[in-house]
Amino acid sequence: MLRTHTCGELRLSDTDKKVSLCGWLQISRDFGGMAFIDLRDRYGITQVVFNVKIDAALYEKASKLGREFVLQITGLVKERENKNHQIETGEIEIIAESITVLNEAKTPPFTIEEKTDGGEDLRMKYRYLDLRRNSVRNNLQLRHKMAQQTRAYLDNKEFIEVETPVLIKSTPEGARDFVVPSRMNPGQFYALPQSPQTFKQLLMVSGFDRYYQIVKCFRDEDLRADRQPEFTQIDCEMSFVEQEDVLQMFEGLVKHLFLNLKGIDLPAMPRMKYDDAMKFYGSDKPDLRFEMRFVVLKHTTDNENKDLTTGQGFKVFDEADLVAGICVGGCAGYTRKQLDELTDFVKRPQIGATGLVYLRVNEDGTIKSSVDKFYDVDTLKNWAQVFDAKPGDLLLILAGETVKSRKALGELRLEMGNRLGLRDKNKFSCLWVVDFPLLEYIEEEGRYFAMHHPFTAPKAEDMELLSQNKFSGIRANAYDMVINGVEVGGGSVRIFNRQLQARMFEILGFTSEQAQAQFGFLMNAFEYGAPPHAGIAFGFDRLCSLFGGADSIRDFIAFPKNNSGRDVMIDGPSEIDQKQLQELNIKLNITKPMKEVNC
Amino acid sequence: MLRTHTCGELRLSDTDKKVSLCGWLQISRDFGGMAFIDLRDRYGITQVVFNVKIDAALYEKASKLGREFVLQITGLVKERENKNHQIETGEIEIIAESITVLNEAKTPPFTIEEKTDGGEDLRMKYRYLDLRRNSVRNNLQLRHKMAQQTRAYLDNKEFIEVETPVLIKSTPEGARDFVVPSRMNPGQFYALPQSPQTFKQLLMVSGFDRYYQIVKCFRDEDLRADRQPEFTQIDCEMSFVEQEDVLQMFEGLVKHLFLNLKGIDLPAMPRMKYDDAMKFYGSDKPDLRFEMRFVVLKHTTDNENKDLTTGQGFKVFDEADLVAGICVGGCAGYTRKQLDELTDFVKRPQIGATGLVYLRVNEDGTIKSSVDKFYDVDTLKNWAQVFDAKPGDLLLILAGETVKSRKALGELRLEMGNRLGLRDKNKFSCLWVVDFPLLEYIEEEGRYFAMHHPFTAPKAEDMELLSQNKFSGIRANAYDMVINGVEVGGGSVRIFNRQLQARMFEILGFTSEQAQAQFGFLMNAFEYGAPPHAGIAFGFDRLCSLFGGADSIRDFIAFPKNNSGRDVMIDGPSEIDQKQLQELNIKLNITKPMKEVNC
Repeated sequence: MLRTHTCGELRLSDTDKKVSLCGWLQISRDFGGMAFIDLRDRYGITQVVFNVKIDAALYEKASKLGREFVLQITGLVKERENKNHQIETGEIEIIAESITVLNEAKTPPFTIEEKTDGGEDLRMKYRYLDLRRNSVRNNLQLRHKMAQQTRAYLDNKEFIEVETPVLIKSTPEGARDFVVPSRMNPGQFYALPQSPQTFKQLLMVSGFDRYYQIVKCFRDEDLRADRQPEFTQIDCEMSFVEQEDVLQMFEGLVKHLFLNLKGIDLPAMPRMKYDDAMKFYGSDKPDLRFEMRFVVLKHTTDNENKDLTTGQGFKVFDEADLVAGICVGGCAGYTRKQLDELTDFVKRPQIGATGLVYLRVNEDGTIKSSVDKFYDVDTLKNWAQVFDAKPGDLLLILAGETVKSRKALGELRLEMGNRLGLRDKNKFSCLWVVDFPLLEYIEEEGRYFAMHHPFTAPKAEDMELLSQNKFSGIRANAYDMVINGVEVGGGSVRIFNRQLQARMFEILGFTSEQAQAQFGFLMNAFEYGAPPHAGIAFGFDRLCSLFGGADSIRDFIAFPKNNSGRDVMIDGPSEIDQKQLQELNIKLNITKPMKEVNC
Repeated sequence: MLRTHTCGELRLSDTDKKVSLCGWLQISRDFGGMAFIDLRDRYGITQVVFNVKIDAALYEKASKLGREFVLQITGLVKERENKNHQIETGEIEIIAESITVLNEAKTPPFTIEEKTDGGEDLRMKYRYLDLRRNSVRNNLQLRHKMAQQTRAYLDNKEFIEVETPVLIKSTPEGARDFVVPSRMNPGQFYALPQSPQTFKQLLMVSGFDRYYQIVKCFRDEDLRADRQPEFTQIDCEMSFVEQEDVLQMFEGLVKHLFLNLKGIDLPAMPRMKYDDAMKFYGSDKPDLRFEMRFVVLKHTTDNENKDLTTGQGFKVFDEADLVAGICVGGCAGYTRKQLDELTDFVKRPQIGATGLVYLRVNEDGTIKSSVDKFYDVDTLKNWAQVFDAKPGDLLLILAGETVKSRKALGELRLEMGNRLGLRDKNKFSCLWVVDFPLLEYIEEEGRYFAMHHPFTAPKAEDMELLSQNKFSGIRANAYDMVINGVEVGGGSVRIFNRQLQARMFEILGFTSEQAQAQFGFLMNAFEYGAPPHAGIAFGFDRLCSLFGGADSIRDFIAFPKNNSGRDVMIDGPSEIDQKQLQELNIKLNITKPMKEVNC
């Protein structure tokens, strides 16, 4: 071993020990005759002193070393005069006796400090230097601890970790697969798994009872800021359970992680029905760090609410299915400019509202609204009452088609949460969203799609609807865990009966031949004694970033890819040899323009 | 939860409790009026009793259930009259009160018992049923525990588990890569990693200090009986260490696994130089469960041994570089037929010897040899003495070119070990083989290849040879751990200097452009302060099979592939849609006969 101690280990009690440390030169300072080096490794920083009066040659050598040189330093541990209470080794320093340069270093292309001058692209190209920064390394250490604690919890609950294959078979349902040409099976391809779904279900058929895996999954999708082509899941499945058992078990997991990694003892997680989440927050993943529930002034398809808007000549409301808004506390003083900003916000194409109606409840109780030429003061006061608005509050109201308006109002709610600082990264609000629809109809495709996936069981009480072909009303025993407005995990009770699984594929537009070719192995397995089972998968990258208080999952992945799916450090993907292509029985097909390709 | 207890949990102390169990019907017996069901789950088997006198309808229902039906049974725990001490629940039984058929089961295509009637192909097609057999499930449970204990040991030693990417870049050095066409980067391909080698080295450059990962790796090789296209490694790397530190650390890991999983306290592992392993056992992975070292009668290129064979008119020995043999204790009584079998064994093409010479030391001290017409009794007695042979021993002697003869004699030694029952699966003999050659010259390719991999450092004391271009004599700080004749792990001290790494690529036949294009990121990284580092990787599948006492790694993989790389259960790989091919900018190229393809 080239060292006796790490750079984070020495304390006052080690005084007068002769030690060897190895690490990187973080910074050196020369005070004429006295030189100091901060030597850094993963475990900490230790100060090393070179005194020209003690060893002039050594002092000379030390003062010539550059940043990020790799050094082995031997010396005596001594108490410091000027103690540094910021770092754990701050009470001691090393009086150097010898120094060995283990490796030199060119000047890094950016400073390896918390506040670095390196842009994203440069840091990604030199990811191995970026990973030297404490914050990035801490992120990956947190990830390691998250995995440890996840395993500790699940091991303790009798889950068995089983590795499922990475080279599997491509299936058209779901996202786009990455495929791998098989040299030994010309013309055939493996696919990389989007999840180990069918394999974990087969493990239940095999009687494994409780399975988990922290596992890489793959989706060839166009990448948005926070998507990666390869990502990691905590993947779990249990037999002989009902939905409630799964919720309890994995609420327990997340509580365990919060307690052991952040010292936070979470309360029991509330449950919210999908329908309520949409109705009150316009999202199936509501951020409950703040309330600001939707209040409805009109909803044509819902008898719950009286229409408080129609017939006063305001066409926008008169023609709307839904008129609903939020009450933003203490914002009655918003300026014209601020309100215009909000109007612009909701009119952005991603949000899609046509306009924004406001209503100020002034401190003196008077009301000012953008629609006060259509509605009399009593009506507006009634609205304020329905919203439970207090003096100083601002109502923001949207109108239009129900689904669209809810979505837009949900985005506006989050925007107001941001503006008011209600989305504190150190505050955590968890809930279960339950009772998802089993199927959703996609207009453009002209067919139903599984909202969770084709293996999700309908609720027993909605089986009647299934037999009547009333697909839209069927609810599933499917559930998502939502933390701070982020879906961190989701799962469902599964189908474990061949006939029902076959029916599901039929509803999803599979011919029985297609269903058999692609999922025959699973349906066959259901005929040999499949137990009732249910499961869940958590997005591990996402969960780590949430615990680490970061917005991007990239900060929690050692070697992430950019939005074009490239690893700019290794410069991959890359072209391959003609010989490789030939062995794989494929050729490139990039001469034609892309448009002709899809004929 | 559909059950109150598992099928492995109830004891005498639970008597009179009302319980619900879920599981599979393992077997049912009907003794006219009394029916018994053995209910099985992962945790054990519990006997359930149905008595026609207590509940005739229930008795009736129970007697109609088939094997592998999935049942939920409620009843009272009672002490058994005829206790079964073979199973942990054998002191109790359940007096059934109700039974629910959770799922029916067709008759399985093979019996789900330890001694099954299912052949390999059938069991692989129905792997989910094969996995129900205790031995197969136990193998995977052992694997889970091996992973747990590996992590426990390495976590405790401050190793951080970091996930490295699966979608990387193809490199021509080493085995054949699996590749993945990139839709977003037309004409370019990802490769699946053969190991995370370069990434773990970059993590050392980043200062992670100690890294590990239990990770899937991929090699597109023609599969032999015990190879899989995807396999799992325990992959590790350490900074600021020398070879000795790595040996100590990972000898510690394997000792920890033996102690915690098999209750075996292993002695310190012997070290053997590669040259000695070849000289004494004809293999770089000698099985040391038994001794039977090679004894040399003649070696033309080695002054250590006197030539005890030449000049007596026996041409085979006269022309041989090496004449060497083994002394097989107590086998002087081998019949002509047995000796012929051994001769046939060594003449098999895989072994490649041209013949076998024997020498019997009879119980009365007389000697009988297949070459006694060439050598007088004194010479033969001298040979016996050199071999330290006792009355009753048999000498088996091969002759020829050194490398080939050693290899053949090594195989013969293993064969004799098998015949004499010296290779007991419950006995474990571990050692380190060290001082491997850095490079080996492959005649057919006309160039040197890295014996371990191109990142392995030459021994400091052999750097002189490197500068003199005497490549064959250079030894590496490379090491293999061998258990019972199986290489379970291997690693090396790495190059951490750009110039030396560049020189290595040059020796391996890379142009500097090729080296830069493929490994530029690593060589660049070495310029920014790379620490001395070293590492190792263990074949996890192999290690598990060794601990489980099995010959095949397939038994320790949940869903293995066959020798054509197929998963016969899911029937993958498979053809993919034309649309998928087009999106990936590739087409099939299988119309030409294979021979023309490699032009």
